[in-house]
Amino acid sequence: MPAKASKKSTTNKPLILITNDDGITSTGIRALVEAMRELGKVVVVAPDSPQSGMGHAITLDEPLRIESLKIFEDVDSYQCSGTPVDCVKLAVNKILKRKPDLCVSGINHGSNSSINILYSGTMSAAMEASIEGIKAVGFSNLNFSYNADFSGPKKYAKQIATSVLKNGLPTNTLLNVNFPDLHMNKIKGIRVCRQAIAKYEEDYNERIDPRGRKYFWLTGKFVNSDPGNDTDEWALKNGYVSVVPVQFDLTAHHAISRINTFWK
Amino acid sequence: MPAKASKKSTTNKPLILITNDDGITSTGIRALVEAMRELGKVVVVAPDSPQSGMGHAITLDEPLRIESLKIFEDVDSYQCSGTPVDCVKLAVNKILKRKPDLCVSGINHGSNSSINILYSGTMSAAMEASIEGIKAVGFSNLNFSYNADFSGPKKYAKQIATSVLKNGLPTNTLLNVNFPDLHMNKIKGIRVCRQAIAKYEEDYNERIDPRGRKYFWLTGKFVNSDPGNDTDEWALKNGYVSVVPVQFDLTAHHAISRINTFWK
Repeated sequence: MPAKASKKSTTNKPLILITNDDGITSTGIRALVEAMRELGKVVVVAPDSPQSGMGHAITLDEPLRIESLKIFEDVDSYQCSGTPVDCVKLAVNKILKRKPDLCVSGINHGSNSSINILYSGTMSAAMEASIEGIKAVGFSNLNFSYNADFSGPKKYAKQIATSVLKNGLPTNTLLNVNFPDLHMNKIKGIRVCRQAIAKYEEDYNERIDPRGRKYFWLTGKFVNSDPGNDTDEWALKNGYVSVVPVQFDLTAHHAISRINTFWK
Repeated sequence: MPAKASKKSTTNKPLILITNDDGITSTGIRALVEAMRELGKVVVVAPDSPQSGMGHAITLDEPLRIESLKIFEDVDSYQCSGTPVDCVKLAVNKILKRKPDLCVSGINHGSNSSINILYSGTMSAAMEASIEGIKAVGFSNLNFSYNADFSGPKKYAKQIATSVLKNGLPTNTLLNVNFPDLHMNKIKGIRVCRQAIAKYEEDYNERIDPRGRKYFWLTGKFVNSDPGNDTDEWALKNGYVSVVPVQFDLTAHHAISRINTFWK
C-alpha cells in the first residue's frame, strides 16, 4: 500500500509531510494541503478520528492500522488509527520512501500558544518530526469553528514554510505558529516570540448520570499573567502571527547548580 | 466522596499527592506510597488502568469518573478514569481540600530518562502539578518487571522527596528522577544531570489479521549518541540515580534571533 507514496521523490520538488490532530477530514488540514501543494510534493498521513488534547501520546498496547484514501485531489493520503505522534512515526518508517524535507502539522482548530503546546497533538506531531531530524512547523488558528476563515492562515503558512525550506532551522528546533482570528488583511505580520508563562484555571462540571453516579467534564479558563510584550500571547492579542522556536530538551539548565547543592 | 481526603490537612504534616501512569494497582505506586507515608499525609489519585505512553494527554471529549478505594492501608486513595494529567487536575480541583506540598509520580516501571520524558505519562503528571505551582518529582525504575526490586528506588525516593520538601524547587521547575536497575547497595549515589540528546530508531512489526488486513506494532531501539558525561544516560549507565531539573517553557530562546532574520 505505501508503494506509491514517494514516486515523485526523485524530482527536485521538496517532499512535504502533512499531519494534524483534528483528523484527516478537518477543514484545517484541507487548508494546509492547499497552502503546501504549490511548494512541493505533498503526502498526508493523519489520524482517522479527532485527537485533540493527545499531547505526545503514542500507542504501545494496541496495533495500528493505515488506510490509503482518495480525499485530496492529486495528493497521496493515508489515515491512521493512532495518535498524531503515531502518524509521524508510521509516515517516516512505513509510508514515505525517503525522509521528508518538511513536516507541517495542522492547521489546528484552536490555539496552541503558550502552555497549550504541552497538551497539543498538533505540536507533538511536529515535535516528533523534529526528533526524527525533519524540519517541522505546527500551525494553529485561534478559531474552533469548522467554518473558520483560513485565508490568513493559508497565506502565512505558505510564507513561513517557504522560509523554512529555504533557510532551514537550528538543530533540534521546530516552530509553533499561531494565527490570530482575523481576516487576512487585518493581520499585521509575523512576530518571533517566546512562549508566554500562562496556565488554565481549571474547573470540572459535575453531573449525575441516569444510574445516579457522578461524572465530571473538564472546563476552565485560560489565564495569562505574563506581562511581556515578547510573548506569543502578546503577539496574537495585538494582531500578529506568533512564531515560537521550540526545543525538546526540557532540562532546566539554569537550575542544575542549585539542585546540586541538595546532596553536597 | 472527596470529603475525607484532607481531614488531617490542618496538622502540620506535609500533604503529599501520589499519582502514576501504570495504574493504581501497580507495584511501583505501592513502593512510592511506602516511601512517602513516613514523610507526610499521603493521598493517592491514580488512573484506573495502565496509561503508559500517554504523554501530556488530557480528556476533553469524555466525562471522567472518580472512585474512592481501600487499596493502601490508612491512605485515602482514588482511581480515576482519565489520563495521568487528568488525575492531577481532578486531585487538585475536586479531591484535595488544599494544594499539596508535594506531588510525586511513579514509581514508573521502565525508564523515563532522556527523550522518554516526552512520551511519559508519569512525567507529564508531575509536570502538570508543577504548572499548578506544586513542587513535583517523577520517579522511574529501569526495570519493567512487575516484581522489580524497589528497595533502592524507595530509599532514594524518600531522600529526594525529603530534600525537595526542605529546600523547595526553583519556580516552574520539577525533577525527573530515574533509578538504575541495581540492588540498593550497588547504587553509587545521586547525580544531577541534563537530559541526554537521544532518540528511538523505530520500526514497526507488520502482521496480517485473521481477516487478511495489515496491522502494525510499534517496536524499535533506543539510541544514545550523546557523548556527555553530564547526562542522565551517563549517570544511569554508571550506577547513579539521575536527577534532571525540568522546565515546561519549551521556547528555544537561543534560536529567536536567527528565526527573526527570516522575515526582516
